[in-house]
Amino acid sequence: MNDDIIETDALIIGAGPVGLFAVFELGLLDLKCHLVDVLDKAGGQCIEFYPEKPIYDIPGLPECTGQSLIDNLQRQILPFEPVFHLGQLVSALARRPDGRWDVTTDAGTRFNAGVVVIAAGSGCFTPRRPPIADIEAFEGRSVFYAVRSIEAMRGRRLVISGGGDSALDWTLNLAGVAERVTLVHRRDQFRAAPDSVRRMQELAAAGEIDFVLGECRGLEGADGNLSRVRIAANDGGEIAVPADRFLPFFGLTMKLGPIADWGLNLDENRIAVDTEAFETSVPGIFSIGDINTYPGKLKLILSGFHEAALMAQKAFRILRPEKRLLFQYTTTSTQLQKKLKTA
Amino acid sequence: MNDDIIETDALIIGAGPVGLFAVFELGLLDLKCHLVDVLDKAGGQCIEFYPEKPIYDIPGLPECTGQSLIDNLQRQILPFEPVFHLGQLVSALARRPDGRWDVTTDAGTRFNAGVVVIAAGSGCFTPRRPPIADIEAFEGRSVFYAVRSIEAMRGRRLVISGGGDSALDWTLNLAGVAERVTLVHRRDQFRAAPDSVRRMQELAAAGEIDFVLGECRGLEGADGNLSRVRIAANDGGEIAVPADRFLPFFGLTMKLGPIADWGLNLDENRIAVDTEAFETSVPGIFSIGDINTYPGKLKLILSGFHEAALMAQKAFRILRPEKRLLFQYTTTSTQLQKKLKTA
Repeated sequence: MNDDIIETDALIIGAGPVGLFAVFELGLLDLKCHLVDVLDKAGGQCIEFYPEKPIYDIPGLPECTGQSLIDNLQRQILPFEPVFHLGQLVSALARRPDGRWDVTTDAGTRFNAGVVVIAAGSGCFTPRRPPIADIEAFEGRSVFYAVRSIEAMRGRRLVISGGGDSALDWTLNLAGVAERVTLVHRRDQFRAAPDSVRRMQELAAAGEIDFVLGECRGLEGADGNLSRVRIAANDGGEIAVPADRFLPFFGLTMKLGPIADWGLNLDENRIAVDTEAFETSVPGIFSIGDINTYPGKLKLILSGFHEAALMAQKAFRILRPEKRLLFQYTTTSTQLQKKLKTA
Repeated sequence: MNDDIIETDALIIGAGPVGLFAVFELGLLDLKCHLVDVLDKAGGQCIEFYPEKPIYDIPGLPECTGQSLIDNLQRQILPFEPVFHLGQLVSALARRPDGRWDVTTDAGTRFNAGVVVIAAGSGCFTPRRPPIADIEAFEGRSVFYAVRSIEAMRGRRLVISGGGDSALDWTLNLAGVAERVTLVHRRDQFRAAPDSVRRMQELAAAGEIDFVLGECRGLEGADGNLSRVRIAANDGGEIAVPADRFLPFFGLTMKLGPIADWGLNLDENRIAVDTEAFETSVPGIFSIGDINTYPGKLKLILSGFHEAALMAQKAFRILRPEKRLLFQYTTTSTQLQKKLKTA
């Protein structure tokens, strides 16, 4: 927990390509930015999903990769000295009496920001939760959606659920570590590497793990401590497997996360904005890039760039109401060129 | 005059950066483009005004020049084989009975286009006309806004009007060619190179030209043939100078040109569009880039790129109403990648 409150003109949520370019457009207007991203590095999906894959539709860049695009954007915004707060999720947002914003992350970082710019792409990735009543009561103690430490599973009785690579890989990796592993999947087809499937079937045939065709339907236990997982088997019977840990691997889903609770107008989990300044239904909160929606919206990086430019104009009028906004071009303004050359 | 009518999906008016990128966005959707530009090469103002000057605000290109940006865009659209018709002005546009468009240029090129995309930047540059009654009647015969041939001025009595470089340079260059040159300017300060002003004053002092402080107020003559230019002199008198040619040099102004006559809704000489598809008040005619206007509009190249992308979606629905539009990304669509690799 950090007691210092960071003052900034703009707090940008999301450090993907559009969040990065927002630093440039705000910087041209002398507005300073801090950025928060839940990932541990800047670049968003460009870096997380396709750092090496070619991108062809950035105007003026006939071919680039996610990595090279982000590298270029980082170089472009360097003169404006953005400050990054990575591996953190913005967890709370509240308007201050003076109209500015108190913003807090789950790591305890606190900001006092003049405007908030949500450039959170598709939102944050969260594990898909299986439809089991009361599962929340066991989460974090007996139910885990990721394995952070193999040692923490040593000697435990595990029920693993799912038919993809994560479920299969952890079944294989934990078979020799856990007291017992039971893999549960609703059919005997898998969306995993065939070799992993074959090895799992060999372990089951040798009696080293159990494989149950069926669906996990309930958890038994008390105070978050699991004792048994109830399974509806495909053959019609119901069994209850003794277990200390339940590991469901049902993939990731995109969630707005805490953003959903901030009172913004939403449209199918995307943030509704105007097309004049890409401001949300809450004045002073903007939303740009894939996470917003408006008539005609395309989820293109280049649209996010445009949205950042128009957003910056309105942000300036909110942050510097006393100043006249002189629209200048980088090509002709020596003042802007001086700013850009300080890098 | 060419009797062949060129059929095309899209006719793009203007081959600046935004017109060029429109070829890319339409091309991704398998729509073919022809482009018309009044300049003799593609690139618009980027090439005409700042080929060597740096541009810093193209996202992902920390620094480029007008020339390199246009070179990159030309490379990016090469797979889509756009056809350029340069040095031509679109002079007429009419809707066909089948809903498509007949488009004609002043060079006689004729198109049958499914949609028309106006990406004409600031419009075309036209000379500023002095406020003299009936001057149009003399234009092209006795009144010229540019000197295309010095020989055509030999032995003529010329009145040149203006106080900038063009007026001064032509006064100096034609002094030994014409029968007589009279320079008229409303004050004895000039917006021209001091050396040119000094040389003009020397010629006037030597009696080789006449310099009149005043304003041209009227033209006398018949059937477009000038006989005298009436001048209101600053000292209060009015004189009439015998003249065969009147050459006013009052600078260039941006004009929409023939576009102004096509029945589109205009807002201070810019074309009003929606922000969903950047379509004008006339269905099937789009306008993108600096020439359009909508709430929040910024004259940025990157905004024109975004506008091109959204325009293309609507153009597709007009041109291929029977087809389902599948929105694809260049990063993940092998189909799009195949198209792009044919270059």
